[in-house]
Amino acid sequence: MKSDVEISQESSMEPIVKIADKLGISEDQIEQYGHYKAKVQFDPKTERNDGKLILVTSINPTTAGEGKTTVTIGLGDAFTELHKKIALALREPSLGPVMGMKGGATGGGYAQVVPMDDINLHFTGDFDALTEAHNTLAALIDNHIQHGNQLNIDPRQIVWKRVLDVNDRELRQVVVGLGGRTSGVPRQDGFDITVASELMAILCLATDLTDLKKRIGQMLIGYTYDRQPVLVSDLHVQGALTLLLKDAIKPNLVQTIEHTPAFIHGGPFANIAHGCNSILATQAALHFGDYTITEAGFGSDLGGEKFMDIVAPKLKKSPDCVVVVATVRALKLNGGADKNNLNTEDLNALETGIVNLKRHVENMQQYGKPVVVAINKFVSDSDAEINFLKDYVHNELGVKGAVINSWAEGGKGAVDLAKEVIAACDQPATFKPLYSSDNSLLEKINAIVTKVYGGTNVELSNKAKNALKRIEKMGYGHLPVCMAKTQYSLTDNAKQLGAPTNFTIHVSDLQLKLGAGFIVALTGKILTMPGLPSHPAALDMDIDENGRITGLF
Amino acid sequence: MKSDVEISQESSMEPIVKIADKLGISEDQIEQYGHYKAKVQFDPKTERNDGKLILVTSINPTTAGEGKTTVTIGLGDAFTELHKKIALALREPSLGPVMGMKGGATGGGYAQVVPMDDINLHFTGDFDALTEAHNTLAALIDNHIQHGNQLNIDPRQIVWKRVLDVNDRELRQVVVGLGGRTSGVPRQDGFDITVASELMAILCLATDLTDLKKRIGQMLIGYTYDRQPVLVSDLHVQGALTLLLKDAIKPNLVQTIEHTPAFIHGGPFANIAHGCNSILATQAALHFGDYTITEAGFGSDLGGEKFMDIVAPKLKKSPDCVVVVATVRALKLNGGADKNNLNTEDLNALETGIVNLKRHVENMQQYGKPVVVAINKFVSDSDAEINFLKDYVHNELGVKGAVINSWAEGGKGAVDLAKEVIAACDQPATFKPLYSSDNSLLEKINAIVTKVYGGTNVELSNKAKNALKRIEKMGYGHLPVCMAKTQYSLTDNAKQLGAPTNFTIHVSDLQLKLGAGFIVALTGKILTMPGLPSHPAALDMDIDENGRITGLF
Repeated sequence: MKSDVEISQESSMEPIVKIADKLGISEDQIEQYGHYKAKVQFDPKTERNDGKLILVTSINPTTAGEGKTTVTIGLGDAFTELHKKIALALREPSLGPVMGMKGGATGGGYAQVVPMDDINLHFTGDFDALTEAHNTLAALIDNHIQHGNQLNIDPRQIVWKRVLDVNDRELRQVVVGLGGRTSGVPRQDGFDITVASELMAILCLATDLTDLKKRIGQMLIGYTYDRQPVLVSDLHVQGALTLLLKDAIKPNLVQTIEHTPAFIHGGPFANIAHGCNSILATQAALHFGDYTITEAGFGSDLGGEKFMDIVAPKLKKSPDCVVVVATVRALKLNGGADKNNLNTEDLNALETGIVNLKRHVENMQQYGKPVVVAINKFVSDSDAEINFLKDYVHNELGVKGAVINSWAEGGKGAVDLAKEVIAACDQPATFKPLYSSDNSLLEKINAIVTKVYGGTNVELSNKAKNALKRIEKMGYGHLPVCMAKTQYSLTDNAKQLGAPTNFTIHVSDLQLKLGAGFIVALTGKILTMPGLPSHPAALDMDIDENGRITGLF
Repeated sequence: MKSDVEISQESSMEPIVKIADKLGISEDQIEQYGHYKAKVQFDPKTERNDGKLILVTSINPTTAGEGKTTVTIGLGDAFTELHKKIALALREPSLGPVMGMKGGATGGGYAQVVPMDDINLHFTGDFDALTEAHNTLAALIDNHIQHGNQLNIDPRQIVWKRVLDVNDRELRQVVVGLGGRTSGVPRQDGFDITVASELMAILCLATDLTDLKKRIGQMLIGYTYDRQPVLVSDLHVQGALTLLLKDAIKPNLVQTIEHTPAFIHGGPFANIAHGCNSILATQAALHFGDYTITEAGFGSDLGGEKFMDIVAPKLKKSPDCVVVVATVRALKLNGGADKNNLNTEDLNALETGIVNLKRHVENMQQYGKPVVVAINKFVSDSDAEINFLKDYVHNELGVKGAVINSWAEGGKGAVDLAKEVIAACDQPATFKPLYSSDNSLLEKINAIVTKVYGGTNVELSNKAKNALKRIEKMGYGHLPVCMAKTQYSLTDNAKQLGAPTNFTIHVSDLQLKLGAGFIVALTGKILTMPGLPSHPAALDMDIDENGRITGLF
């Protein structure tokens, strides 16, 4: 069996100029980064927003992975098979996880975006630019304090941490500024992974360079000794930070193995941020294609909910159809099967765990849009298991569904699904938001917990209660809420699988993200800086003298 | 008067494909990064190494700047004026200083490399890739310790710090690994600026991808509890780190305002590392051009000496001519003039300070190669001052010299200098190295101190003495020495200008850089992480809705 990187390196790519041309993008509108990657010059003000939008989300993911990106890419290739003018809109991978765990963010098997090695490694430098801009701001804050602290910033109340695009638990909690008078002011600090930076969220929500600069200026960096908020604009550095992101804001264009155009741009994590690719990439896809397929991170409870409640209002467009990805393996796990025993047929576990799929389908249905279930087939699935699942989707859930096998077959393996999706896109449907901006912050959190997670209560820690009071007093109660929650469960406890009821969500803190324009509610134990496993993927990677890569998935 | 960024943005660039074509580089051999930047696919094994090589160095720099890069670029444009097949080989700017102090590394006035904004901001991502690779290694080291520490690494003896391409004094000395059992092992650590990373030195010394990987594997990361060295190869991650640098190793091609081709690649600082662009960039220039002009950082005592003693042996070629850049202003400062009074004619100060030029010319002459002095003219220089300097160069030093005014006139302002340089390149000359690898480390340091700095003694701290013993015991006494010293003085005290004699150089520590293949000798108080000034340049930078940039010099 060939590895993903082998399939990728053996695939014959078309020059990116030709891929752009498929969408009617001229050579003048792109800046090439090598022969197979380009940044697209695109003025969102000229946007034609009437393409059909398809959102791909999933059941709760397991450590095995549900292949949501593989499904998204395969579905795109099926649209190409059906001669539709299609563009994908996807997130960029983060190097931290790439170096840590096997399994990339560029699809798998014969449903991949290429060149997968470049996309997984630095790509066009967007994340590196974000890292640089984020840390430049951090340095400017400490430098302001060092040189007299005219703004009266309290070093104990700085909320702007530092970031690296590395999984590095060692940097979660640090003390900086040691070494005496000439080396800064000692204080507690910490590093997040770059994809958790508010700058990443902003890059993905900004509608143009001016909006980006405005949002950067609004970011909260800390408080003064008399507890007044300090914004980036108080430091007068929003111009310099925007300058550092002048290229990062432009969407990137690549292709799938089957030459379907794919915009890949931005990538905030969905458990700690809003988890969707940039609005500009989705707008570019909608502008140039007749159909756009985009993917939201993790399950419908995280990326799916956030796409609907945070992204759609800013995009001024909601999905015409939602695809929920499910696998037999993950549903069996949700039904109590042993994770080391998923290759064995187990209809009981499947029947027990299938409630997880039901919840995710209903989650998306309540937004008023048609839902199609994609059954992502694995080699180990038995016919009986697949049939049971198909049957359940059709008869119990009453929605359309299709088996997809793009990992092995590329676009051909997703044609059935594509036909269902195209049909669904033509159904008339009205978007029903979960909450209105008039709702209080607590009402918004309650709406998400009860209507999406299936829980009953929200419990705020004292810290969260104080933060809530302060945020409302500051006049930011109208902002949407971005939940930070484990992706593995509908609850805030990663071990509670299936479709739990009667549970409480524990909010430990609320963070004000004024640039992104949302309030992050931290639940359970959510880490904003991952660690590496005992055998990191990096140990198996190599490149030989001819540039042949091994071990990159 | 137009700012550098205005001149740059108004200049009419040629497509990079056309610039490559001037050197006989086909479209297949380049990967475009936008329309005006490219990475060059170049196999150094096919190298034609018989082009003429010109090294530009200077007197001790002052905070005002001697315009060495401006001279280098102007000289290149003069070669173009004279219809010579010329290629420049320059260093990439570091974003830390760009955000800190006015004055970029891309030349000035009408002698600039363009697009200067892109070159100063991320460029093709090389430094970002180095930052990522460096910190990935740091995370892998701490992760190894966290997961059982099979290699028995002593957390107190880790020599591999972390890096950011930011001027951030707050990160010089930090404590990492706080937060309990799941967040690493608490220990002392620190951040250097990316250009001080050994990976940067290696990128600039590697001759191909295989050599890069070999050198990365050899890097020393720390010691075990029983004081045995631990190398990157012990962790088995040289493959992954090389993979992260697979594009960074390729030289970048851009152009000057007058369309002279320029390879810009790598940029280790010259006060803490070897201070020259990559060997691959110089090789590419030598391969494709008849003349190559390259620049070494700071004065002849730093970048100049290091080019001769560290780079030339690895390049297997020494310069055919050395250009020493001098300015009236800097020599007056060296002669005791007030730095706020440099616009006033002061022949006495010039006469006193000119000994600094004498020392730098003699420094380079002792390597056996012809020296030409470039008198870089400033608007404030009086005719009497310029004439005095010309006269001194000709009659007292007995070397060729010419006034250059490329800042105002571009290549035309450097034609006289170019003619002298071309003539010098045709003189027969034999390269005389300063020391041989058979010399002991102390003999090598002594040779540099007495023959280049003009000092009399070397004093080692106890720490340095112990390090020396350990390094020699480990069998690395044959390696060359890379001095870390202030750029402002020939001594290790930044305030001692002119050409001091009878002084002692104080070596505080010796660091083993096994990947780079040299021993760093730290003298005086050399910082490997700069700080920002009280009014950082970032505060004045901006970009408007049309992408027009202001404040970037």
